Amino acid sequence: MCELLGMSANTPTDICFSFAGLAKRGGKTGPHRDGWGIAFYEEKGCRLFHDPNPSAESELSELVKNYPIKSELVISHIRRANRGKICLANTHPFIRELWGQIWCFAHNGQLKGIKKEPLTFYQPVGTTDSEHAFCWLLDQIRLNFPKRPAKLAKLHQLIRDCCHQLNQKGVFNMIMSDSQHLYVHCGTRLHWITRRAPFGEAKLLDEEIEVDFSRETTPNDIVTIVATQPLTTNETWQKMGKNELQILTKGVFLKND
Amino acid sequence: MCELLGMSANTPTDICFSFAGLAKRGGKTGPHRDGWGIAFYEEKGCRLFHDPNPSAESELSELVKNYPIKSELVISHIRRANRGKICLANTHPFIRELWGQIWCFAHNGQLKGIKKEPLTFYQPVGTTDSEHAFCWLLDQIRLNFPKRPAKLAKLHQLIRDCCHQLNQKGVFNMIMSDSQHLYVHCGTRLHWITRRAPFGEAKLLDEEIEVDFSRETTPNDIVTIVATQPLTTNETWQKMGKNELQILTKGVFLKND
Repeated sequence: MCELLGMSANTPTDICFSFAGLAKRGGKTGPHRDGWGIAFYEEKGCRLFHDPNPSAESELSELVKNYPIKSELVISHIRRANRGKICLANTHPFIRELWGQIWCFAHNGQLKGIKKEPLTFYQPVGTTDSEHAFCWLLDQIRLNFPKRPAKLAKLHQLIRDCCHQLNQKGVFNMIMSDSQHLYVHCGTRLHWITRRAPFGEAKLLDEEIEVDFSRETTPNDIVTIVATQPLTTNETWQKMGKNELQILTKGVFLKND
Repeated sequence: MCELLGMSANTPTDICFSFAGLAKRGGKTGPHRDGWGIAFYEEKGCRLFHDPNPSAESELSELVKNYPIKSELVISHIRRANRGKICLANTHPFIRELWGQIWCFAHNGQLKGIKKEPLTFYQPVGTTDSEHAFCWLLDQIRLNFPKRPAKLAKLHQLIRDCCHQLNQKGVFNMIMSDSQHLYVHCGTRLHWITRRAPFGEAKLLDEEIEVDFSRETTPNDIVTIVATQPLTTNETWQKMGKNELQILTKGVFLKND
């Protein structure tokens, strides 16, 4: 099992607090020793950190924990290898460009037979099931929408259908972004919390850290965090349903069409 | 003008020394204040650091200078913006996937009318001439070689032809990689040096740093560094010819076909 973390916010927000909890699971409070990665969007650009070393011992991870990179969209992944050797090319999140947008994808689970699915535009660089699934998903989007559609409802429906297909192949917990939306699919296990005014205090489950969000936010901020397991002890996290896709933008869930 | 730096080596080598010199030009000894980026290949994977902040003052840049990431292929770029605003999406190097390989591209110069060239598979995310040129170049490769050719001579000839075409549009100093080769095109200004046994000492031009390579290498190591300007004062750098493309692998120049 790997651990996923995603954030969608309506204002650039640092993820130091949540990442500190997640990173601890990479080799200390959790068994996820086989690398980690994090992507921060900054408008259309995307800043990526990848490390095949355990996050709990990584110098890069220290940098990310302490360097308050602010972003409205973040995707992170801590890996426990089950398919594919431990190397940089197999480290999530994966990225590709479609319609001049950077798409970013992180996955937890196994997908039986996924590598038999033929690919058209995108080819995996590494050997994971996950990257193959990402290439297949982007292929479907590109085959159906060679150009970015003006109305997004049909695109969202296609992504939902593809996620359901992938889910039938095994376990498909996924967080993906197109630089505007956060697409979150729960196969077996994902939790979320939305923080907005009045902000309170939060206490990490995995490390002795507390944060008082009311000191770091404005009353208009909306920040939704998605994670495999709740990261804090004193807040109420919502459990997602199985085979449920949610789409967020600016911290807010889109209504299902 | 921007500054380019590339490395091709036959053994994983850290670029801390050369990067320390280059980074200094980002806002201290040089005027290149508009961001920087560096890509390190690790087998088929690629580790990227991008920062729209000046490299001379960047915390990330400190990390890269001090954290000896070892790689056989490195591409770095320090930017002085002339087209396109300063933001992450406009920060080199740019990457795309082709044939399941990560291609990475950094450019110095302007290319008049490049944005009128139509694009097929790849679309720029940012607004620079450079990224448009990269997308165009990869498009030409993909249109001519939908699959990776077994014999590389024709591919290399195509890349040479494309570089000549781009060079006619203005200034095209470029360093690119496909995760195996380093493609280096000199439009107006690029220098290179190959270090091999017997290794000696080198002294940076931009910072008070010396290194004794004989302590850090084995007799079989071959390391070629390419840079806009020579980075050291006590070594002899070779100047590349105008409109010259060189292709390196494992630190060694391929013979022109």
